[in-house]
Amino acid sequence: MINANQLGALEAGAAIAAGTLTAEALVRSCLERIEQREDVVGAWIYLNADNALAEARRRDQEPSKGPLHGVPVGIKDVIDTGDMPTAYGSEIYAGFRPAADASSVALARAAGMVILGKTVSTEFALRQPGKTRNPHNPEHTPGGSSQGSAASVADFMAPLGVGTQTGGSVIRPASFCGVVGFKPTWCTIPRMGLKIICESLDTIGVMSRSVSDAAAFVQALSGWPLTPLVPLSAAPKLGFCRSPAWSEAKPATIAAMDEAVCRLRAAGAHVEDVVLPEPWEAMPDAHAVIQAVEAARSLTFETENHWQGISDNLRKALTNDLKSSQGEYRKALDTAARGRVVLDEQLTRVDALITPAAPGEAPKDLTFTGDPVLNRIWTAAGNPCVTVPGLSGPLGLPVGVQIVGSYADDATTLAVADWVHKAIVK
Amino acid sequence: MINANQLGALEAGAAIAAGTLTAEALVRSCLERIEQREDVVGAWIYLNADNALAEARRRDQEPSKGPLHGVPVGIKDVIDTGDMPTAYGSEIYAGFRPAADASSVALARAAGMVILGKTVSTEFALRQPGKTRNPHNPEHTPGGSSQGSAASVADFMAPLGVGTQTGGSVIRPASFCGVVGFKPTWCTIPRMGLKIICESLDTIGVMSRSVSDAAAFVQALSGWPLTPLVPLSAAPKLGFCRSPAWSEAKPATIAAMDEAVCRLRAAGAHVEDVVLPEPWEAMPDAHAVIQAVEAARSLTFETENHWQGISDNLRKALTNDLKSSQGEYRKALDTAARGRVVLDEQLTRVDALITPAAPGEAPKDLTFTGDPVLNRIWTAAGNPCVTVPGLSGPLGLPVGVQIVGSYADDATTLAVADWVHKAIVK
Repeated sequence: MINANQLGALEAGAAIAAGTLTAEALVRSCLERIEQREDVVGAWIYLNADNALAEARRRDQEPSKGPLHGVPVGIKDVIDTGDMPTAYGSEIYAGFRPAADASSVALARAAGMVILGKTVSTEFALRQPGKTRNPHNPEHTPGGSSQGSAASVADFMAPLGVGTQTGGSVIRPASFCGVVGFKPTWCTIPRMGLKIICESLDTIGVMSRSVSDAAAFVQALSGWPLTPLVPLSAAPKLGFCRSPAWSEAKPATIAAMDEAVCRLRAAGAHVEDVVLPEPWEAMPDAHAVIQAVEAARSLTFETENHWQGISDNLRKALTNDLKSSQGEYRKALDTAARGRVVLDEQLTRVDALITPAAPGEAPKDLTFTGDPVLNRIWTAAGNPCVTVPGLSGPLGLPVGVQIVGSYADDATTLAVADWVHKAIVK
Repeated sequence: MINANQLGALEAGAAIAAGTLTAEALVRSCLERIEQREDVVGAWIYLNADNALAEARRRDQEPSKGPLHGVPVGIKDVIDTGDMPTAYGSEIYAGFRPAADASSVALARAAGMVILGKTVSTEFALRQPGKTRNPHNPEHTPGGSSQGSAASVADFMAPLGVGTQTGGSVIRPASFCGVVGFKPTWCTIPRMGLKIICESLDTIGVMSRSVSDAAAFVQALSGWPLTPLVPLSAAPKLGFCRSPAWSEAKPATIAAMDEAVCRLRAAGAHVEDVVLPEPWEAMPDAHAVIQAVEAARSLTFETENHWQGISDNLRKALTNDLKSSQGEYRKALDTAARGRVVLDEQLTRVDALITPAAPGEAPKDLTFTGDPVLNRIWTAAGNPCVTVPGLSGPLGLPVGVQIVGSYADDATTLAVADWVHKAIVK
C-alpha cells in the first residue's frame, strides 16, 4: 500500500470524497514526508504544520466543494497569502504579511483545497536562486524560478504546487525535477496578488505528477468548474519544432527528443517537422527586450529604496541589461503578438507542437537555475505549454518533453499532453 | 497673477526648473485650495499636509529628474502607496498600509513628482460611490470610479491625478468634471500594486487640464522619457462614431457632439461618419461578460472572508450578475480581440474617432456615478481614449468629447486629442 502523500491530487480528492481518506491524514502524510526530506530538498520557505492541519480539519468538517476538496498545495512565495508571510523571494520583504490572499489562493481555498505552505522562489522570480535542491540529486539545481513547487511535487511532499513563468520558470524546473508543468494561456489564472514583474509575460502555472491533475488544478485556480480532461479520440498529429534556439539543446535533450518521437510514432502519432516562419527568429530578442523593460520598471520601488537588499546578481542585471527605447519595446510587443498569430496558423495543420522543455538535464550548479532559452519564446507568444516527464539523460536525471498548443485552446493542449505523457512512459 | 495651483503640470514643472517656483510653494498652494474646498468637493480619502510638504522640500533640494520634477499628484485609492494607507475604496481595508509603492507610484516619484495624497475611489473601483461631489455643482455626481482624481484636478487642488478604467472610470468622471481624461492603450502603465479587479480590462489612466500634461504624465508613469507631444502637421481626418450605444446618448450629449463637429469642421477637420461593423454590436455584451466573470473571481478573498464588509450594492452585483460559462467568457474575450482588429482597420481610413464620452451631463444623484455604456466598448478593445472638455449642457455642466485612436498608437491619439481640444475651446 502506498502512503497518502504519493497519491495524485484527483486520486486523493476521490479518496477524501469516498471517505477512505481524510484531508487531515493526507496533510499529515505530506508533513511527514517534508520532515524526512526537507533538510535535503529545501522546498519550503514557510510552513506551519499546526495551521495546515487545522485547515485540513476544517475541510473534513465542511461539505465538499469539489474534486480537489481537502487536497494540499504549495504556493510559490511570489503570490500573496493573507495568513502566511510572503517575501517574493527577497530579503527586502522578509516577514511581510499581505492583507489578503491572492485571487488564485482564494480560489484554491474556495475549491476546498488546503494551503500547505509557501514554496521557495528565486528572488522576485528572476535569476538569483533560493535554497532548493534537485530531489533527484541535491548537487544539481532544481531549476527556477518556481523551484520549491517543482521539487516539492517531485519529492511527494505535496501533490500540487503553484508556480509562475516569465521566461521558463514553470516548464524548466518541472523538466529538471521530473514532474508535469503546465503554463496555461497568458492570464488564464488571475494575477491579482502576484508580485507581477513582467506584466506582458508573467503567467501563473502549476506543477503536478499527472496531466489530469494539472488540468483540474488550473480550472480551480481560474474559478471554473472542474470538468474531467477529455482524452483524445485518436492518436494526435504532432509538429516536432526544434525552435529558433535548437542550437542550445545539449545531447541529453537531443537524444530525449529523438526517443520521444520514436515512442510517439510507435504509439500511433503522426510526427512531422515544423519550422516556424518569420517573426520567430526574432522572438528570443523580443522576449529579452520585454523582460528587461518590464522588470526594471516593476522593480522601481525596490531599486529606488532598497538597493542594498537586492542580490548582486539582480543588481548587475538591472544595471547592465539592455536599455531599450519605447519604440524598441513596442516593436518587441508587436513581434510577440505576430509570433502568436503565426504560431496559431501553424497549429491549424497539427494538433500541437512538441519541443524541448530545457537544454538538457539539470546542471550540477546550485548558483544557476539553468537557461530559459527554450522556453521564453513560447512565454512571449502566450500560448499554453505543458512539459511531461518520462525520459532521462546520461546522468539519470529527468528530461521533459514540452507540448505547445494554440492560444486559448488549453483543453486540446492538455489532452495532447496527456496522450504524449502516457505514450512516453509506456 | 494666477495662483500656483492653477498652473498646468508642465507649466508648473517649467517654473520649478526655471527657479521661479518651488515644489514646496506649489504644494502649499494646492493644500490651501484643498483646505478651502474639500468640505464641498470631498476628493481626498487620505492627505497628510506635513508629509507632502516634506516630500516637496526634498524635491527642491535634489537635482531635477525631468519636466515634472516637483509637481504634485493625487493617487486613486485603489493603487498602493508604501507611505500612505490604501483602502481600495473598501471598509474591509480601512487603514491598510501596503509594503511598497505600486510601480506607477514609484515611477512617478522616480520622475521627481510629489505624491500629494490618495483620492477617493468607488468601492474596488466598481459602482458604490465614495464621498466625492461634482465641483461644478455639489448636488451632482462627479462620476466614477476615479471620482477623487477627476474632481481634484477640475477644482485646481492638484494639476494631475491618477485614475483607472474598467468600464468608463477615467473618461466618464473626466467628462462630468470638465477635465482631460486619458486612458492609454491597455497595459501601458504597469499595474503592479493596483488592486486589479478585471485583468483583461483594468487600465491605469490620468486626469489633467491639458492634453500635453496628460501625455507627459503617462510617459512618467510608464517609465519613459518625457518627450513633448508632437502637434499634428495638418488638420485631422476624423470619424464620427455614434457607437452601438448611441441610443443611450441624452440630448445634452447629442447637442454637444453636433456642436463639436461644427467647431472641428470650422477649424479645418474632415469629419465623416463611421459605423463599426461586426462584432461591434456584440461588444457591450462582451464587456459585461468579461467584467462579471473577472470581478467575481478577483474578489473571491473578500466574498469568502468579508461578505459583511461589502456594500449592499456590490453584494447584489456579485449575487445577481450574469454567471457565464468558461466558453462564454472565452467567446467574449475573442469578441473583444476581434473588435480591436476591426476598429484598427477602420482607423486606417481616419486619424481617430470622435464619440461621446458620457451619456450626458453629470446626473443629479450622489448614489449613482453614471452609466459607462458609452465607454466600456472601447475599454474592451483596449484602444487609447482621451476625453477633452470645452462644451457644456443645458444645466451648465461639462460634456466631454471622446477621441479613440489605434491600439498602441497613443502618440497620434494624443496629438489628435490636443488638436480637437484646442478647436473646441476656440
